[in-house]
Amino acid sequence: MSTPDAPHDNPLANKAAAWSALFSEPMSELVQRYTASVDFDRRLWDADIQGSLAHAEMLAAQGILSAADHADIQRGLAQIRGEIESGEFVWKLALEDVHLNIEARLTELVGTAGKRLHTGRSRNDQVATDVRLWLRGEIDLLGDLLVQLQRVLVVQAEAHASVVMPGFTHLQVAQPVSFGHHLLAYVEMFARDAQRLQQVRQRVNQLPLGAAALAGTSYALDRERVARTLKMEGVCQNSLDAVSDRDFAIEFSAAAALVMVHISRLSEELVLWMSQNFGFITLPDRFCTGSSIMPQKKNPDVPELARGKCGRVVGHLMGLITLMKGQPLAYNKDNQEDKEPLFDTVDTLRDTLRIFCDMLAGLSVNEEAMERAALRGHATATDLADYLVKKGLAFRDAHEIVAHTVRAASSQGVELAALSLTQLQAIEPRIEADVFEVLSLQGSLQARQTLGGTAPTQVLAQVARHRQRLS
Amino acid sequence: MSTPDAPHDNPLANKAAAWSALFSEPMSELVQRYTASVDFDRRLWDADIQGSLAHAEMLAAQGILSAADHADIQRGLAQIRGEIESGEFVWKLALEDVHLNIEARLTELVGTAGKRLHTGRSRNDQVATDVRLWLRGEIDLLGDLLVQLQRVLVVQAEAHASVVMPGFTHLQVAQPVSFGHHLLAYVEMFARDAQRLQQVRQRVNQLPLGAAALAGTSYALDRERVARTLKMEGVCQNSLDAVSDRDFAIEFSAAAALVMVHISRLSEELVLWMSQNFGFITLPDRFCTGSSIMPQKKNPDVPELARGKCGRVVGHLMGLITLMKGQPLAYNKDNQEDKEPLFDTVDTLRDTLRIFCDMLAGLSVNEEAMERAALRGHATATDLADYLVKKGLAFRDAHEIVAHTVRAASSQGVELAALSLTQLQAIEPRIEADVFEVLSLQGSLQARQTLGGTAPTQVLAQVARHRQRLS
Amino acid sequence: MSTPDAPHDNPLANKAAAWSALFSEPMSELVQRYTASVDFDRRLWDADIQGSLAHAEMLAAQGILSAADHADIQRGLAQIRGEIESGEFVWKLALEDVHLNIEARLTELVGTAGKRLHTGRSRNDQVATDVRLWLRGEIDLLGDLLVQLQRVLVVQAEAHASVVMPGFTHLQVAQPVSFGHHLLAYVEMFARDAQRLQQVRQRVNQLPLGAAALAGTSYALDRERVARTLKMEGVCQNSLDAVSDRDFAIEFSAAAALVMVHISRLSEELVLWMSQNFGFITLPDRFCTGSSIMPQKKNPDVPELARGKCGRVVGHLMGLITLMKGQPLAYNKDNQEDKEPLFDTVDTLRDTLRIFCDMLAGLSVNEEAMERAALRGHATATDLADYLVKKGLAFRDAHEIVAHTVRAASSQGVELAALSLTQLQAIEPRIEADVFEVLSLQGSLQARQTLGGTAPTQVLAQVARHRQRLS
Amino acid sequence: MSTPDAPHDNPLANKAAAWSALFSEPMSELVQRYTASVDFDRRLWDADIQGSLAHAEMLAAQGILSAADHADIQRGLAQIRGEIESGEFVWKLALEDVHLNIEARLTELVGTAGKRLHTGRSRNDQVATDVRLWLRGEIDLLGDLLVQLQRVLVVQAEAHASVVMPGFTHLQVAQPVSFGHHLLAYVEMFARDAQRLQQVRQRVNQLPLGAAALAGTSYALDRERVARTLKMEGVCQNSLDAVSDRDFAIEFSAAAALVMVHISRLSEELVLWMSQNFGFITLPDRFCTGSSIMPQKKNPDVPELARGKCGRVVGHLMGLITLMKGQPLAYNKDNQEDKEPLFDTVDTLRDTLRIFCDMLAGLSVNEEAMERAALRGHATATDLADYLVKKGLAFRDAHEIVAHTVRAASSQGVELAALSLTQLQAIEPRIEADVFEVLSLQGSLQARQTLGGTAPTQVLAQVARHRQRLS
Repeated sequence: MSTPDAPHDNPLANKAAAWSALFSEPMSELVQRYTASVDFDRRLWDADIQGSLAHAEMLAAQGILSAADHADIQRGLAQIRGEIESGEFVWKLALEDVHLNIEARLTELVGTAGKRLHTGRSRNDQVATDVRLWLRGEIDLLGDLLVQLQRVLVVQAEAHASVVMPGFTHLQVAQPVSFGHHLLAYVEMFARDAQRLQQVRQRVNQLPLGAAALAGTSYALDRERVARTLKMEGVCQNSLDAVSDRDFAIEFSAAAALVMVHISRLSEELVLWMSQNFGFITLPDRFCTGSSIMPQKKNPDVPELARGKCGRVVGHLMGLITLMKGQPLAYNKDNQEDKEPLFDTVDTLRDTLRIFCDMLAGLSVNEEAMERAALRGHATATDLADYLVKKGLAFRDAHEIVAHTVRAASSQGVELAALSLTQLQAIEPRIEADVFEVLSLQGSLQARQTLGGTAPTQVLAQVARHRQRLS
Repeated sequence: MSTPDAPHDNPLANKAAAWSALFSEPMSELVQRYTASVDFDRRLWDADIQGSLAHAEMLAAQGILSAADHADIQRGLAQIRGEIESGEFVWKLALEDVHLNIEARLTELVGTAGKRLHTGRSRNDQVATDVRLWLRGEIDLLGDLLVQLQRVLVVQAEAHASVVMPGFTHLQVAQPVSFGHHLLAYVEMFARDAQRLQQVRQRVNQLPLGAAALAGTSYALDRERVARTLKMEGVCQNSLDAVSDRDFAIEFSAAAALVMVHISRLSEELVLWMSQNFGFITLPDRFCTGSSIMPQKKNPDVPELARGKCGRVVGHLMGLITLMKGQPLAYNKDNQEDKEPLFDTVDTLRDTLRIFCDMLAGLSVNEEAMERAALRGHATATDLADYLVKKGLAFRDAHEIVAHTVRAASSQGVELAALSLTQLQAIEPRIEADVFEVLSLQGSLQARQTLGGTAPTQVLAQVARHRQRLS
Repeated sequence: MSTPDAPHDNPLANKAAAWSALFSEPMSELVQRYTASVDFDRRLWDADIQGSLAHAEMLAAQGILSAADHADIQRGLAQIRGEIESGEFVWKLALEDVHLNIEARLTELVGTAGKRLHTGRSRNDQVATDVRLWLRGEIDLLGDLLVQLQRVLVVQAEAHASVVMPGFTHLQVAQPVSFGHHLLAYVEMFARDAQRLQQVRQRVNQLPLGAAALAGTSYALDRERVARTLKMEGVCQNSLDAVSDRDFAIEFSAAAALVMVHISRLSEELVLWMSQNFGFITLPDRFCTGSSIMPQKKNPDVPELARGKCGRVVGHLMGLITLMKGQPLAYNKDNQEDKEPLFDTVDTLRDTLRIFCDMLAGLSVNEEAMERAALRGHATATDLADYLVKKGLAFRDAHEIVAHTVRAASSQGVELAALSLTQLQAIEPRIEADVFEVLSLQGSLQARQTLGGTAPTQVLAQVARHRQRLS
Repeated sequence: MSTPDAPHDNPLANKAAAWSALFSEPMSELVQRYTASVDFDRRLWDADIQGSLAHAEMLAAQGILSAADHADIQRGLAQIRGEIESGEFVWKLALEDVHLNIEARLTELVGTAGKRLHTGRSRNDQVATDVRLWLRGEIDLLGDLLVQLQRVLVVQAEAHASVVMPGFTHLQVAQPVSFGHHLLAYVEMFARDAQRLQQVRQRVNQLPLGAAALAGTSYALDRERVARTLKMEGVCQNSLDAVSDRDFAIEFSAAAALVMVHISRLSEELVLWMSQNFGFITLPDRFCTGSSIMPQKKNPDVPELARGKCGRVVGHLMGLITLMKGQPLAYNKDNQEDKEPLFDTVDTLRDTLRIFCDMLAGLSVNEEAMERAALRGHATATDLADYLVKKGLAFRDAHEIVAHTVRAASSQGVELAALSLTQLQAIEPRIEADVFEVLSLQGSLQARQTLGGTAPTQVLAQVARHRQRLS
C-alpha cells in the first residue's frame, strides 16, 4: 500500500499524536516551545536525509523493505530535499524536531512506505547519526580553512624572513627575531589544530544507527553496510553507548577551544602591533572601523572581536562538559542541549578562520619601526655574553659583566651597541673591535642557526618544509 | 533647521560613511557580517530609546539643545518606537548596531536635530547604558518569577507537611522527613537567588552615560539628572570604568548559574522520583513526552532539559569571564561579545522558571510509595539510639548496639520495626515496649522539633514565615 | 563518669570502629587516603573548636549537658588548642577529618564528656558550620586588603592627577587622560569587589548547626543561642538545605573570580606599560626578576603571575559549580570536594592583594614617556571637532573635516597640533589661532569636567570622595 | 678547572645573584614566596636530570663540552639523584625552582663543569622539556590503568552477560538489557579515553630543548640527537612556539576531563544502584563508610567522591585555558601556573582509576532485584509492537494499540505480561498465545541480535573482541 495517506491519517501530522493513547492531555504551548528543537536542529536536514537513504537502502537489501517502498522513500526524500533547498518546506514546531518534520512530510508524500522507514530505528540513534554526519562535514571544511590559513602565514613568513623585530619574553625585549619566524610559530599551532581535528574526526565518524532506542533491535539490520554507504569508519559497538555518548561533541569543542586560544594570542599581538606605541603593522582598512566621536581612530575591530570570541567557544566547551557530568545511561533529554553550542562553535570557527585568511594576507609591515624597537632593550646582550665566553670567560661570569655593561649603557640612556670600544674595554679589557658585529641585530639573527632557530636560512628551510607538507 | 535631510545627506545612511575620510576602502561584506551586532542587539531598542529621551531632556534643560530640537527628537523617537512595535522598522546590517540604526532613522525623520542627539555621548557609554537598563528590567521580571516559584513550592509544602518520605544522605535512606520539608529546602535556595539578584541589581542600576568615549566630555552635562530620569540609583564615578566595566554582566551570570544549579538539583530529584524504582510523584502529562518506538514511555522531558540547560548558563558565565580576562582599559571591541550570552541566559532563566511554576503546581504525590520507601533502610535507627541514650547508655555505645540490631534485622530481611520485642531485648535488655513508638515513621518525624527541623509543626511554621515574607 | 577512658576504650581511636558492627572488613589503605580530608581540612581546626565550644555552652544552658561535662569539654578543647598551636598535635589519617581528630583527642583527654559533645550534632552540620566560620574570617581579611589596595591606588592617583597619558580604546590612542584618573578606574572595580564580598558574607554568616544529619534532632537545642555566641546573623531555616547547601562557596568564588579578573586587567596594563615600547612605568626591582641567559632583562614577574593566577581562581569556580550540578538532597560525599578550591582561592587572593599593595605603592612613573605617547595618534582630534561645533558646524560635518585634517597631518608624518594655522585654514577657514589651545594635551584634559571625567579637578574630587569612603 | 667552587663563589648559591648587577635591591620575601615554584615543581626532578644528561651528552658529542666536564656532570647528577631519592637533598626557596636548585647543587659538587651545563640552554626550553618528559611518563601509567579498568569491566560483563536489568532512557524503564552489556558501554568510553591519551602523547613527546630563551642559540646543537636520547618522537620546529606552547597541557587536561566525565556517569549509576530504591548492587564494605550518627548507614563514599572530583579536573582545564587566552609570544611568567593544575589532574586520575579497578572487581550484583525492576514499567512493550507488526499491522498502528494495552494494564496496576490472553485479544484480536514469549524479559533480550545489541551472544562476542584488543 504505497499510496499516500490522507493527511488526517498521518499519526505524525501532529507529533503529540504519536503517543496520545497513553496521554490524557496535550503538551502545553510553553512546554512545546521549551522542548522543541526544530528551530535550531533543522540545519541537520541534509544529514538526516542522507542517513535515511542509507538506512532504507540497507532495509531493502535485507528484505525488510520492499523494492516499491524503497523507491517511494527515495522519491519522497528527493522531493523533500528539493523543498528544503528551495525554501518551500514548512517546518512545524508541533513536530518538535528535524526528524519528525521530515518523516511526517515523507508519510504525507508517499504514505505507508514513509511509516516503514522508521523500522529498526529510533530517534535516539537517528539524532546521534545525524549530528556525527554533519559534524564530519564541518570538520573537513574547518580542516581546509586551517590549511589555507597556514598557507597565508607561510607566504608572509617567506616575505619577511629577514625582517628583524624584537623577540619578547615577559613583553620585554629579549633577543632579535625574524618576523617571518614569529609568524611560523602560529603555523605550528594551527598545524597541531589540524592534526587534532583529524583525530577527533576518526571518533566522530562511527555509526550509531542500529542501536535503536538503546538496546539494538530484533530486525536483522546490516549496520556495517550502512556505515559503508555513509563512508563511516566503523560501527559503534555498544548500543547503550551509541545513543548516550557525546564525547565527540566535547572533544571537538576542546579542539575548537584550542584553535580559538591560538587566534586569541595572534589577535592580542595584532592589536599590540597596531597600537601607536608599537606601530609594527597596518591592517587593511576593510578590517578596521572608525569612531563616531573620534575622527582620527582606526580600530582593529576584527582581531579584538576574534579574541573575544575565544570566550564564547570556551564557554560552549564548559557548557557541554557540565551537560554530561553525572548523567546516567542511556539517552536523556539533557542531550538535546548539545546542539546549539556545537553549531555556534562551528560557525564561530568558520567565520573567524575565513576572515583571518583574508586579513593576514593583507597585513603590511613597518620594517623600520620593528627594527627601531629591536634596537631598544639591549636585545643583543646575550650575544655579548656568548662573545665573552668565546674569549674564555665562564658563562656565569660573562653574564655578570654584561649586566654591568647594560647598567652603564642604561645610565647614559643609550643602547649597548652605542657604547664606544673604550667604554666597553673599561669594563672588560678582553673586548675588541669585532664585538660590534655581534652587537648588531643582523649579526645576532644570523647566528641562531639551530634547527628551529630564528636565522633567516632556518626560517626559509621551515617555509620549504611547510610548503611541502601543505601541498 | 529641523526639516528632515534628504537621505543622501545623512552621513549615517551608510555607517561606513561615518569615518570615510580616513578610510581608503569600504568594509568587506564578510567583515561587516562578522562585526555587526544588529541581528542580536536590536532587542535593546526600547532601552536605547529611553536612554536617548533622557539624554535629550537633559541636553535641553542644560541649554545645549534647543527646545525645538528637543521636540523634534521626541517626535522622531516616538515614531520610531511605533515603527519598531509594528514591525515596519527596517533594520540594516550596514548600520552595524541598534544605536546607529535608530539614530540614522531619526536623522532621516527629523534632520539636524537627530544629528545633535549624539552631543556629549559616544556609543561606548550609550551601549553600556542600554544594556544596564535592559538588564534591570529583566532582573525585575526574574525576581517576580522567583517569588512565584517560591509560592508554588510553599503551597505544595503546606499540603504535604505530614507526608513522610525517606530523607537521603548519599542517596541512602537516612531518616524520615516530611515531603513538605524537603520542598522548603528549595524555597531557601530560590530565596537566596532572589536576594542575590536584588544585590546585583544595585550595581547594574548605575549610569555610564556621560562618560562619552572614555574620558568624559567638555559639554556641561548633568549626569545626575539623567540618572534620576532613568530611575537609576547612581552615576558611574569614573569614565574609563564606565565604558569598560562588564562586572555587572558577569555577576548577573554567576547569580543566574546558581539559579540553574538549584534547578538542576530539583530536576535531578524530579527525574529520580518519577522513575519506576521510586514512583514518588507524577508530573502532569503536558510536561512529559512519549516515545516513537516505546509505546509505554512517559518521560520527564522538562526537568531533564532544565537540568541540561544548567550547562548552557554555566558556559555563558565561563565565556564572559574569559572575555574580560586580561583586557586593558578602556573600551575594546571584545566587549561586544557580552550580549549574546547575557541574552540567552535571561531567556533560559525566564522560560525555565515559568515552566517550573506551572509544572510544580501540577505535581501529584504518591504518598504510599514514599512511605513504603521510608520503611526501607532502617530509617529510624537514629531514633532507637536516642531512645537508648535516654535509657542511660552513652551515645557511642548506643550507636554500636543499634548497629548490631540493624545487622540482625538485615540478616532476616526485615526492617527494625519488624523485630519482636523479644528479639530486641535479646540484644539489649533495657529495651521496652514503648520502643515501637520511636521506631514508627510518624514518631520519628514528630520528634524533630528543632528550629528548621522536619516535624510537621516546624514545617507549617516555616510555611507561615515564607507566606509573610513573600506577600 | 568524666574520668578519661583508657585509649583502647575510645571508639574513635580508630575511626572505622565508629561503624564497625555493620561492616565486615576495614577500609583499605588506598580508600582511606582517597576519602580522608584531614590533610587539607585541618586548617579548619580553630573554627571547629569555636563551634564545639558554642555548641557545648548551649547544651549546658539547655540542661542537656552537665556543668561538669561542660567544664571538662572546655578544659579539653583549651588543651587541644594549645597542642595544635604548638605543633604537638598528632593528626591521624585514620581519623579521616579535622572533626574526628579533635573529637577523638578530646575523648582521650576528658573521657565520656567528650563523647557527649556530639549530642544533637552530626558531622554534616558540623562541617558546614566550620567552613562558614572560617570563610567569614577570611572574607573580613580580604575586605581589609581590598581597602588597603584602594588606599594605595588613591595615593598614587592624587600624586598623578595632572599627569597626562594617552587614553586608549581598542589600544589605539583615543583622547588624553590623567594617569590618576586611569588608576581610579581600578578603585571603582575594587570597591565593587569589596561590596560584593560584604554581601556574600551575609549569606555565609548563617548557622547550619542544629540541622544534625539532615532532619534536625529530637534534643531541645537552642540554635539561636549558638548563632549569637558565634556572632552569626541568623540560623539556616531548613535542615536539609543547611547540610547540603554550598551556594556560599560558589558565590564567594564568583566574587573572587571578579577580583582576579580586575587584577588580570591591571596586570596586563602594568606589563604593557613596563614594555620598552611603552616605557610608562618602572616597578621596583624587588618585584621583578632577571634572566639566567639574558643579562639585560628585568621582567615584571609579579603582574604576569597574578594575571596567570586569574585562571586558577576561575578554574576553582567552575569546579565548584560542576561539583554541585545535579546533586540530589541532602548531604553527599561529593561536597567534601568544596574545600581545596575554596582554600586555594582564599590563599591566592590574599597573597595577590598583599603583594599588589606593596608593588603599586612602589610604582614609579615616567611622565615624559606618557606625554610623548599622548602626543602620538592625534589624541585631541575630538577637541578639534568640538571646537568646530562651537564655531557653528554640525557635529557630523565637524567630524568629517577633522578626519580630513588627520589625513593631512598623517601624510606629512606629523601630529595635528604640528600643522600650521595656514594649513588648518586651508582645510576649514573658520579655524583661528585659538585652536592651538584645544589641540594641547592639557587643554583637552582640563576641558573634561563632567562628573567622573578626566579633568584633574574631577580626579581630585574623586580622590576626596574615596578618602572619605575608605576612612 | 673542574675542582668544585667554594660555595660562596657560586653565583647560583642565592638565585637573585644571577642577575644582581642590574638590580638595586633584593627580592622581598613575600615576592620570593609568590613567584617561587620549587614547592611544587620539585616533582619534575627526575625529568630535569634526564634532560640535563641528554643535553650534556650532546654537548660533549658536538665538542662544546670537554669529556672531563661531561664526566663531572654525570657524576654530579648521579649524586644529586641519590640525594633526592634518599631525601637528603635540601630544596631552597631562594633558588626559586627545581632547575636552579639542581644546577646550584651541581655547581657546588663539580664546579665549573656545572656552570657549563647551561650552555645553549635557557630555563624556558628546559622547563618545557621537563614537563613534557614527566607528562609522557604519567600518560603511560594512566594508559595502563585504563587498560586494567577495561579488563575488570570485561570480566564483570562476561560474568553477567545474561543478567537482565531494566534499560533506562530518561531514567524510565525502556527495554530489558543485559547488565554485562551495560558495563561494556563503559568499556567503550574508557577505550576512547585511552586512544585519546595516546594521541595527546604524540604531541607531548616533542623536544623543545635547543630553543633556548626564545630564538635558538648560536651554539652548534644537535637537537635531533637529544630527541633520540630522550626517546622523543620529534623536535619542536619553531623556537618561539617551543617555549610558549602549552597546548599539550590543555589537550591532556581535556582528555582527562573526559575520563572524569565517564567516571562521574558510572559513579552516578553506582550510587543509584546502591540506593535502597534500586538495590541492584553492593559495593564491598572497604569502599564504603558509615555514619557517626546513623548506625544503619553504609554509604558509597568512593563513587560519590569520584563524581565530585570530576569538578576538580574540569576546573583545572578551564583554568589552563583561561591562563593561555590572549597571551602574546613568547614565554611569559603566567605559564608557571600550568603546573599545579596539571599535577593535580594526574594525581586525581591515577588515584581514581586505581581505586575503581579494585572497587569494580569487588562489585556484587543482586540479580533478583534487577529482574524485578525490569518487570516494572512494561519494558517489553516494544516487543509487543514488533510482534503486531509481524502479524501484519503498520508500525505506527501497532504502537497505538500497545499504548492502549499499557493503559489497560496500568489501570489494573499490573504489568503487560500479567494481562490474560482474553484481555489482550479484547484490545487486538490478532494477538495469540505465542505473545507471552515476546513479553518475557529473556525473550526480549535474546531478540536484540544486531551488532552491538544487548543479546547475551552479542555481549559475549564483544567480550571476546575486547579481550583480544586488550591483550
